[in-house]
Amino acid sequence: MANPPVIEWRENAVHIIDQRVLPHTVDILHCHKTADVCDAIRSLAIRGAPALGVAAAYAIALGAVRIRTTDMTEFLSELDAIIEQVIATRPTAVNLPWAAEQMRATAKAKSESSINAIRHELIEKAHAITQDNERRHRALAEAGGELFHPSDRVLHHCNTGPLATAASYGTALGVIQVAHQRHGVHVIVSETRPLLQGARLTTWELDQWDIPFTLISDGMSADLMRRGQINAVIVGADRIAANGDVANKIGTYAHALSAQTHGIPFYVAAPASTIDFNVATGDEIPIEERDSAEVRGFHEQQWTLDDAPVSNPAFDVTPSDLVSAIVTENGIHRPPFPSSLPQPPESSGNTIT
Amino acid sequence: MANPPVIEWRENAVHIIDQRVLPHTVDILHCHKTADVCDAIRSLAIRGAPALGVAAAYAIALGAVRIRTTDMTEFLSELDAIIEQVIATRPTAVNLPWAAEQMRATAKAKSESSINAIRHELIEKAHAITQDNERRHRALAEAGGELFHPSDRVLHHCNTGPLATAASYGTALGVIQVAHQRHGVHVIVSETRPLLQGARLTTWELDQWDIPFTLISDGMSADLMRRGQINAVIVGADRIAANGDVANKIGTYAHALSAQTHGIPFYVAAPASTIDFNVATGDEIPIEERDSAEVRGFHEQQWTLDDAPVSNPAFDVTPSDLVSAIVTENGIHRPPFPSSLPQPPESSGNTIT
Repeated sequence: MANPPVIEWRENAVHIIDQRVLPHTVDILHCHKTADVCDAIRSLAIRGAPALGVAAAYAIALGAVRIRTTDMTEFLSELDAIIEQVIATRPTAVNLPWAAEQMRATAKAKSESSINAIRHELIEKAHAITQDNERRHRALAEAGGELFHPSDRVLHHCNTGPLATAASYGTALGVIQVAHQRHGVHVIVSETRPLLQGARLTTWELDQWDIPFTLISDGMSADLMRRGQINAVIVGADRIAANGDVANKIGTYAHALSAQTHGIPFYVAAPASTIDFNVATGDEIPIEERDSAEVRGFHEQQWTLDDAPVSNPAFDVTPSDLVSAIVTENGIHRPPFPSSLPQPPESSGNTIT
Repeated sequence: MANPPVIEWRENAVHIIDQRVLPHTVDILHCHKTADVCDAIRSLAIRGAPALGVAAAYAIALGAVRIRTTDMTEFLSELDAIIEQVIATRPTAVNLPWAAEQMRATAKAKSESSINAIRHELIEKAHAITQDNERRHRALAEAGGELFHPSDRVLHHCNTGPLATAASYGTALGVIQVAHQRHGVHVIVSETRPLLQGARLTTWELDQWDIPFTLISDGMSADLMRRGQINAVIVGADRIAANGDVANKIGTYAHALSAQTHGIPFYVAAPASTIDFNVATGDEIPIEERDSAEVRGFHEQQWTLDDAPVSNPAFDVTPSDLVSAIVTENGIHRPPFPSSLPQPPESSGNTIT
């Protein structure tokens, strides 16, 4: 893509594409403090589980650079506070605390050296997380590419492209990128209310890759399946429980139920770091409840009563028995779960304590 | 309600509440020609299957008043053209051609009298259709009121209140009105993309009746059902096939599938005139494909690419095996269909030729 990087470290600042104003405007946020990155995360200027891992790492590196003390104990204590601040931004995606804990471990491992050495090491670690993220998403997309057949019509929910991964390839959209390179595919884009990531971001990315698509409202997918106009579904994931239950953007579960009724495969694509072996089932995954204003309208436009009571869970849980396969950088994992899921190495940070 | 009537005949004009600008503005369209009413129908200034029947009747009466010829054959020929113009506005709701054919039959029955006598008779017939509509919706709401239990949390899609029926009681919302009067009920309002009739119109009506509600995006219903926060669904219908298949606002079928998975009853409320015994199954019901701009944004705001390809079916078909009961003014009809459905009298106009 000829676009600027989704997130980039530049001279002790973090530059982030503001996804809130896409596709009409490509605007860059210049974050000079951890709090700026946290604001960008909370307001969804940057979003997508894998991208949140990268953003968390750079937010913490940025904080480390700006801590003013020369006392190591004080430095590590302030760093811990920064890490907690970053983790608290959004509760559902596991990649965010996963990256944050890698940063904490990196600092701790260097606590016998100087504060400047730790700062340097944290910046390097954030870069390493970014490079590792790039490599994993390329491998994931290649592994999943074989799931689709020529001229398949694939339903995709939310946004899982490079905007969501901060890599060259997306997760679910990465699989679509590769399938399209190999033999072509048509994407049915679910607009993804309330924040319209499908309508705003996925269409923008597909258009740049010249991948044909059709935009629909979320409630249309079941009808299109009934009429034979969708023959596969692929989505990303914000957290996957040990049993294969998938937490993903609200609306995913409804698509999965419809897919099951119509005998259509339902695929999930996510890096292995998304699998949280510390939660046994999806019921244990914390679900973020977001601001009511998001459902009452969009951006400045409000189309319901000012004080309309709202429910706004950002994610839902799709039980593993609806999942045909989970694609990670390690390959395609089919049920039964968890036995077929990749067991991450100890160092991956998935055992958050 | 202290609001003006949804539709009203006043001194050879038809006054219509402009539902496009609700809930922020209560604006009245003054229609002086059939074409004005047709525009109001096509642009959804007035919508809802039963209200379309009333609107069609008045649109035809208005046309009859304005035909300038004194030749009876020419008058009847121009009237036929007006009737076809009205029927062509929207293809899915059966109430619209049903009312139009009643008007045609009324004119034909008077063709031995004078043109002015026919004009008078058509205005009277439109009033009679309106009064009959009022009576049927009151009966329907009373009949359905027993479906719900105190403190039920009922999912409702689109808008089926007085705004949709042009009566004091809605269809599905009419049942909710009565259930609330009897013992209270909580409504989960599905916003109903793309035109947001739930967010704009249903919340406005519920608020006026002091019925508690929670507004959600369409894709949230399955998740709320999984978490036990919805325990019944009720919707209206634009056309019901002889076998009980239900054409209703797009998104209905997805709610019905989720309800079945979670063992939640799925009810349909519609006047008996909605049942079209001329179509055997839902597959024969014509589904209106509406303008792409409706999915690309809302009103003036567009949030996707200018030329994003779109699919925009206005309705979907819910197979009868997902329907727990159909409520009409004749009572509660449970499967098996069609044997339990009310067979309308010959005069109801359902046998459109």
